[in-house]
Amino acid sequence: MSRKVTAKMAKSSMAGPGRRERRRRRLGPTPRPAGGAGRGGPGRAGPGRAARTARGGMGGPRRLLLVSNSTLHGGGYLGHCQQHIKSFLGEKVKRVLFVPYALHDRDAYARTAREKFESLGYGLDSIHESCDPVEAVRKSEAIFIGGGNTFRLLKALYDNSLIQEIRKRVLEDGIPYMGSSAGTNVATVSINTTNDMPIVYPPSLQALGLVPFNINPHYLDPDVKSTHMGETREERIRQYHEEPNTPPVLGLREGAMLLVEGDKATLQGVTGARLFLRGKKPTEHEPGTDFSFLLIDSDLQNL
Amino acid sequence: MSRKVTAKMAKSSMAGPGRRERRRRRLGPTPRPAGGAGRGGPGRAGPGRAARTARGGMGGPRRLLLVSNSTLHGGGYLGHCQQHIKSFLGEKVKRVLFVPYALHDRDAYARTAREKFESLGYGLDSIHESCDPVEAVRKSEAIFIGGGNTFRLLKALYDNSLIQEIRKRVLEDGIPYMGSSAGTNVATVSINTTNDMPIVYPPSLQALGLVPFNINPHYLDPDVKSTHMGETREERIRQYHEEPNTPPVLGLREGAMLLVEGDKATLQGVTGARLFLRGKKPTEHEPGTDFSFLLIDSDLQNL
Repeated sequence: MSRKVTAKMAKSSMAGPGRRERRRRRLGPTPRPAGGAGRGGPGRAGPGRAARTARGGMGGPRRLLLVSNSTLHGGGYLGHCQQHIKSFLGEKVKRVLFVPYALHDRDAYARTAREKFESLGYGLDSIHESCDPVEAVRKSEAIFIGGGNTFRLLKALYDNSLIQEIRKRVLEDGIPYMGSSAGTNVATVSINTTNDMPIVYPPSLQALGLVPFNINPHYLDPDVKSTHMGETREERIRQYHEEPNTPPVLGLREGAMLLVEGDKATLQGVTGARLFLRGKKPTEHEPGTDFSFLLIDSDLQNL
Repeated sequence: MSRKVTAKMAKSSMAGPGRRERRRRRLGPTPRPAGGAGRGGPGRAGPGRAARTARGGMGGPRRLLLVSNSTLHGGGYLGHCQQHIKSFLGEKVKRVLFVPYALHDRDAYARTAREKFESLGYGLDSIHESCDPVEAVRKSEAIFIGGGNTFRLLKALYDNSLIQEIRKRVLEDGIPYMGSSAGTNVATVSINTTNDMPIVYPPSLQALGLVPFNINPHYLDPDVKSTHMGETREERIRQYHEEPNTPPVLGLREGAMLLVEGDKATLQGVTGARLFLRGKKPTEHEPGTDFSFLLIDSDLQNL
């Protein structure tokens, strides 16, 4: 039985909840994994419920383009993924709401992003130029959260009360969400698998929860020639999975991206990805891999 | 005028405080820098006061050996610094209290550390084998906190209520403190400049504050041949210094260590260090550098 059918059956068994209740059921609480994302988040759900709601609600129209890195070596800003962006946003979207919180100089960052998006035929509004960021999200046709420092970004999303509003727009209203690097990290369950330095302290490591797993952007294979003794990326992710109830981690190499359309997730780009499941050996995946199974409740994967 | 003389003068100007008050003045609150270490810590002092108390109180006998890395490429566990350890602990110390919280397998970690310290002529007790960790710290002759994941380590120090007790033993009672990698990170103002993945969420990033600055262990120079687009270590530290009121950061290369004896700090090892001050160009420092100026109130350095 497909999950869509299951979702329909579940919906049809709801005996007439009010509009607010129906919305609450679709959107659900922000996920709060037991694996160390921390207290202080807006929701209290365990990972099972989190994963179910992060699927996009009851057959929700979730659309995500989660890019590993903003700039590929030798290319310009978003150059390596510009065709994916055009294809993802399509012709219906006219303006994109940009979130520059991950970098210190927001004006300069917005200029860079605006130039790129205008060259692709889209207008760009930067959220930091709005006097009411929540209202800017409410009015947006599409959201793009750029890279930089993930801790700084997540803290700013909390400080500006944007977590629930972005979740609602993406999971309920179905506006396209694009993230790059830190912007991809915050789209997942938590930022527990960021590579960034914790230069500030967000009220929680729990993030937007638009998918029920974590991503490690800029995934880097071990350098066999290195004499440096710091942990490899794989060792760091293994340490994360030593903690209880930690979700899958998708290591997206630079040049890779994940396209999510409803219940379907596809690996795009050219460099592939490495998937880490708690207690299992990591596996390699080529571009084109169907990762839709990662959108299914992560509890079910352990059955 | 030397700081010791100043400290004596300050002490002589105290008109008969009680024993508890004298102790409070010596030990002071745990530091709480404004630069993003976060809420929830045990103290409420600003960076100025934090720095003053972290000097070791009023002429306190603080003794620290802060090592960048546990294992140097091609060598055994603590092999590259074993002579420094013997010289640091001397013949008076008989047993060392080991803190293995940064790694998941504490038993295995304690075996490794015990073997090494016994080979150097010291007994080793691992704090995780004690039913009362606070009491174990109270009775200890010397403390060694080993490397691993800094977030996991700091969370365990908070969970076991050890922050204040370790500070007291080191800053007031003057027992030797040795840290390696994560154990060096937690000796500083905060773990804002760790390289580790935030696999768990500690109640604060504020750390032991045994010195009034931060350290970046395993400091790594930019690889000019790399095509990887993740931030270099220097860029990450510069991002930290974009935040307000952030203390100096000493980048300790693998093979380097900092010896602190009271008010004197000396760079040891063979690989040197790079010093980052907010708003200034980073500077290179050879082994043997006198870093005592870093022990002076970091507010004063900005005058």
